[in-house]
Amino acid sequence: MITSKYIERAVDELASLQGVGRKTALRYALDLMGRSEDDIERFAQAIIEMRQKIQFCSTCFNLSDQAQCEVCQNPNREHDTICIVEDIRDIMAIEATQQYKGVYHVLGGKISPMDGIGPSDLKIDQLLTRVVGHKPKEIILALSPTMEGDTTAFYLFRKLEKQGIEKISTLSRGVAVGDELQYADEVTLGRSILHRTPYENAVT
Amino acid sequence: MITSKYIERAVDELASLQGVGRKTALRYALDLMGRSEDDIERFAQAIIEMRQKIQFCSTCFNLSDQAQCEVCQNPNREHDTICIVEDIRDIMAIEATQQYKGVYHVLGGKISPMDGIGPSDLKIDQLLTRVVGHKPKEIILALSPTMEGDTTAFYLFRKLEKQGIEKISTLSRGVAVGDELQYADEVTLGRSILHRTPYENAVT
Repeated sequence: MITSKYIERAVDELASLQGVGRKTALRYALDLMGRSEDDIERFAQAIIEMRQKIQFCSTCFNLSDQAQCEVCQNPNREHDTICIVEDIRDIMAIEATQQYKGVYHVLGGKISPMDGIGPSDLKIDQLLTRVVGHKPKEIILALSPTMEGDTTAFYLFRKLEKQGIEKISTLSRGVAVGDELQYADEVTLGRSILHRTPYENAVT
Repeated sequence: MITSKYIERAVDELASLQGVGRKTALRYALDLMGRSEDDIERFAQAIIEMRQKIQFCSTCFNLSDQAQCEVCQNPNREHDTICIVEDIRDIMAIEATQQYKGVYHVLGGKISPMDGIGPSDLKIDQLLTRVVGHKPKEIILALSPTMEGDTTAFYLFRKLEKQGIEKISTLSRGVAVGDELQYADEVTLGRSILHRTPYENAVT
């Protein structure tokens, strides 16, 4: 029921964003309609410029203003520890914890046959080349604890264990900090009892 | 934790959209990052063009490609029935029902002292000028049945009743079609009993 082809086109484009339906897109379009032309110019320019200026880091596939990202360029990071993540947002989340000093490798997704995503669609070959070339001491498989994440981690583990890496680790799983035990799901609680840790480790 | 100023800027702009927080904006930005430059150019252009080409109808403040909107230009519509709505999306919703043949007047919001929106921020003066000039037979107050909507409708009613309009009506309220009676809220159910309609009217 949109009668203008210009609004129609803008709504189509906005609705192409991940997770945005036509109603939400229309809300965005009407919001944008209410602003000055200068504001809209700045809005559009910011998006165009981002796409033009940002590239993927040639080493780890993180987003970057340069050919290599800030993490890979930083000599103070531990370059022999590689944390494998699914997505750039995972890097942001891990960096926000300030608990990790190594480098990353962004897969760009996880193996999901249901969505037609196989190993060749991810940056796995690039990871193996990197591992063979640089011989890291430790690889951390930091994938989401979901079916697809576990499948991807297992696939990578099988590929990586042949490379003679000292340590292949994964994120610890258990009851989240701040959670009430009674509301934790059974699988998580079961695993967190099975893989219980010495008290002095847990509190630091 | 975004390290690139280009992404930062695009996220800022996307987060300025109504109802979009920084996490959602980042998701949109990363989605856009994964597309070709041509796609992004088209995305941005559609928004800029919409803003440049679309104007507000000089009569009813609906969005339009021309100075007057399609509804106001259409000689087959009943121009002596004006339906007052809050927002352009309300026109779309009413048009989708195909039950209304009159014209519209978009207020551009509702009176809401909490948000600092008073009568002078809405197209009420323009409505009164239009009413005085065109002497419509009927005015329909099609505002949302909320506190602010009711306030606005009452305010308009007081202004309009002095103009000698034959009929000032409002949308009927009651149990929504398809709703289970037991889950209807008390106020709605109470009103729908109080304002019960002849059976032969209700089923057509």
